[in-house]
Amino acid sequence: MDKYLQNMKFLFNPSSVAVVGASQNPGKLGFHVMKSLTNGGFPGKIFPINPGGQEIMGISCYPTLAACGDMVDLAIVVVPASVVPTVFQECVKNRVKGIVLITAGFKEIEDPQGAVLHEQLAAIADRAQIPVIGPNTFGMINFHARLNASFTPEFSLLKKGHIALVSQSGGMSHLLGFLGIRDNAGFSKIVGLGNRLNVDFAQMIEYLCEDSQTKAIALYVEGIDDPGSLVEKAKAVTGRKPIVAYKTGSAHVGDQASLSHTGSVAGKHDIYLAAFRQAGIVTVPDSQQLLDVAKAFAYCPIPRGKGIAVLSGQAGPGMAGSDICEREGLEIVSFTPQTQAKINSLLPPLALRTNPVDMGPAWYDASAIAGIVKAVMDDDNVGGILLFMMFASANVDAVSGMADLLKSWNQRKPVISCMLSPPGIWDEQVCELEECGAIVNYSTPERAARAMAALCKWAKMTRKNKG
Amino acid sequence: MDKYLQNMKFLFNPSSVAVVGASQNPGKLGFHVMKSLTNGGFPGKIFPINPGGQEIMGISCYPTLAACGDMVDLAIVVVPASVVPTVFQECVKNRVKGIVLITAGFKEIEDPQGAVLHEQLAAIADRAQIPVIGPNTFGMINFHARLNASFTPEFSLLKKGHIALVSQSGGMSHLLGFLGIRDNAGFSKIVGLGNRLNVDFAQMIEYLCEDSQTKAIALYVEGIDDPGSLVEKAKAVTGRKPIVAYKTGSAHVGDQASLSHTGSVAGKHDIYLAAFRQAGIVTVPDSQQLLDVAKAFAYCPIPRGKGIAVLSGQAGPGMAGSDICEREGLEIVSFTPQTQAKINSLLPPLALRTNPVDMGPAWYDASAIAGIVKAVMDDDNVGGILLFMMFASANVDAVSGMADLLKSWNQRKPVISCMLSPPGIWDEQVCELEECGAIVNYSTPERAARAMAALCKWAKMTRKNKG
Repeated sequence: MDKYLQNMKFLFNPSSVAVVGASQNPGKLGFHVMKSLTNGGFPGKIFPINPGGQEIMGISCYPTLAACGDMVDLAIVVVPASVVPTVFQECVKNRVKGIVLITAGFKEIEDPQGAVLHEQLAAIADRAQIPVIGPNTFGMINFHARLNASFTPEFSLLKKGHIALVSQSGGMSHLLGFLGIRDNAGFSKIVGLGNRLNVDFAQMIEYLCEDSQTKAIALYVEGIDDPGSLVEKAKAVTGRKPIVAYKTGSAHVGDQASLSHTGSVAGKHDIYLAAFRQAGIVTVPDSQQLLDVAKAFAYCPIPRGKGIAVLSGQAGPGMAGSDICEREGLEIVSFTPQTQAKINSLLPPLALRTNPVDMGPAWYDASAIAGIVKAVMDDDNVGGILLFMMFASANVDAVSGMADLLKSWNQRKPVISCMLSPPGIWDEQVCELEECGAIVNYSTPERAARAMAALCKWAKMTRKNKG
Repeated sequence: MDKYLQNMKFLFNPSSVAVVGASQNPGKLGFHVMKSLTNGGFPGKIFPINPGGQEIMGISCYPTLAACGDMVDLAIVVVPASVVPTVFQECVKNRVKGIVLITAGFKEIEDPQGAVLHEQLAAIADRAQIPVIGPNTFGMINFHARLNASFTPEFSLLKKGHIALVSQSGGMSHLLGFLGIRDNAGFSKIVGLGNRLNVDFAQMIEYLCEDSQTKAIALYVEGIDDPGSLVEKAKAVTGRKPIVAYKTGSAHVGDQASLSHTGSVAGKHDIYLAAFRQAGIVTVPDSQQLLDVAKAFAYCPIPRGKGIAVLSGQAGPGMAGSDICEREGLEIVSFTPQTQAKINSLLPPLALRTNPVDMGPAWYDASAIAGIVKAVMDDDNVGGILLFMMFASANVDAVSGMADLLKSWNQRKPVISCMLSPPGIWDEQVCELEECGAIVNYSTPERAARAMAALCKWAKMTRKNKG
């Protein structure tokens, strides 16, 4: 393995972290980075580097990197741009393995001096094969290492899990993280690429492909200098780990915004989308879907075939979900005669008993609901199940049997649900079902159906690329 | 005013409610209806009708409607279908003004007897000009009268407000209500039409148009027998109150589901959409957008012109929102020279200072952020503002000045925002800004931009229909 890749492992799993520019002034980013590391519970050694400081958050300061001895794996750098080349040289000298460069003011500024500085830093880092996240980034978080190497301590509120988010925008990373708290999504890593000195999407995909904590990769892309390299790495990953991408910058005004923002032109939107498709990357049209699809990718087994069953506790959400299925090319399959006979025995004739099944008339019979779900789970025609149920106190009893069934069934097919209830009725149980991997849940049937469609799309691409 | 319309007022604002089929058995809907009325804090008189019962939830039972004297405005009926015609006759005899008929088993069942019963009930109700919500409904809620006439007590958790939801599906009503809790949406009424004995969309639109508590009407439609009548009533309302509709049943399988569900064929989806457009009804493609657009319609002033400003605290969300604006035909306008000069004085040259404005570089200067927002608010070229900001502890100070500005500005133009933060950072302040009418907030920039697009679409239709 080359040194760069080896250093990537240290970058994300350091034994020790130095904060170059640590501060006890809450108006400084160096303060918030220290708070992120300490509040996040980083178990390794923390070195606050501040020549004038005594102690920050109870940890003794060091005047320089050299004073830490030969012990720093990761340096988080938050000093002014002009000082960064000197810091980089010290990093090399002290055998630092990886750098998170939060400082802004390089390639993205109008002054050509910014681009010069950028090239200077790249030369130093590349020569030493030190991977650098940034510059102009909020940082990165490795949830499995309890490493919050960012200026946002609140990222540590997110649930540890299996989605790796790699993003070209700090704002979008924060947005998706905060949405993730609402939506009970679990992350392995969140990485803000910033201006991408030498860690770009391609390098991250290559690294994450080998990362056992990451089961799905979500990309937020504005515009990149080397899309060919991303596509090439993604192709190598296809079939091993699903990748979903959200690309903005389709708007005319977007090109200008992106140039100013991260120093790259957004470029032709459609060309990106075609390249992503070719690389086996599933694309989505908005931020909520990026998170939704990533969640399905990370927590669902692969559906076999595109035959879908729609089971709903109430007809309306079933119709809404079925509309999306049909629009997205999912087949709402016919059940086998055995399954159909079983359902007919459990539902009165007034119900819609063929797929999509309206289980409403069995709503007060927990064993009938469980029986229908079980029969459909066991049906070989069915590759995945969409389950839509609204609960309140009047009908909550009907689902307890089904919950046990879902838990014991061990997720042989994806069960993607919209189970929604008012606070205190069944929300904790839904979280519990998600935790144990029985379901992946969304707050509308349309979001659930779109996630299923993406899952089937990826399964199909994978089969094609293998065959 | 005719007696039917007058009775509609009593139906939604009764002084007294009888529950025909009230029960103290939690396995019965009559129990949950009683719980809804009592927990919801209905201030009027409640008559539980149960020939065998003594007392339900501390309220004395009455053996019959007649025993209540001439005092019942609204009867909620939850007895078996076969008994309902007798109950209806008693309602007429006792001068009941309105009925909510929760009981199922009429037009939607295969047995032709169901349709016969339906017609029989319609004849009784129509002759007496008694409006009937249902049959086959969860009921209805009038939040301003503290009247929860449904079998779901949890509807009383929703916030009182100005969205009236009229829905052909109980499941969808529950879904939208529970989403409303998450999304801080306020409702005036939620009405489950069920099989529509004599209260259909047309009658509800006519009634809600005159309802001072309702500022926006949201429709969930599967398929209706008399779409012409809906379109005609909606046309009469256009320009007075905005209407947004979500129509499902585009899927092939949907027609079958709708027939079985509420006794109507979903019909040709595209024809509905064209008719809605003609009637000045804005349509949306999913349940989340139905709620989102209704919220904007109920709580935003009408934008003048389609010129939009996009102000973002971070470039990524700004790009995502701008993409949607362009796709939806919103114009991201040029500022007046005065506004542009002001912004140029507040943002360094490295920022994108033209519209869409990336306020990121001013992120640590609360007065600069407030100054930019103020300048754009006062710009005559700008008809509406999209404001995207992600907050965490590192940057929360920058927004306090802006919050005061938004509150004092008195909403002369719509300010639609995506202001998102982790729990405990700024979520309460966002709610407070919504409560006082300063902003309407969404959890992604794309949802905010789509809501603005719908608002502009409605403003345009209104102008056209007036001119």
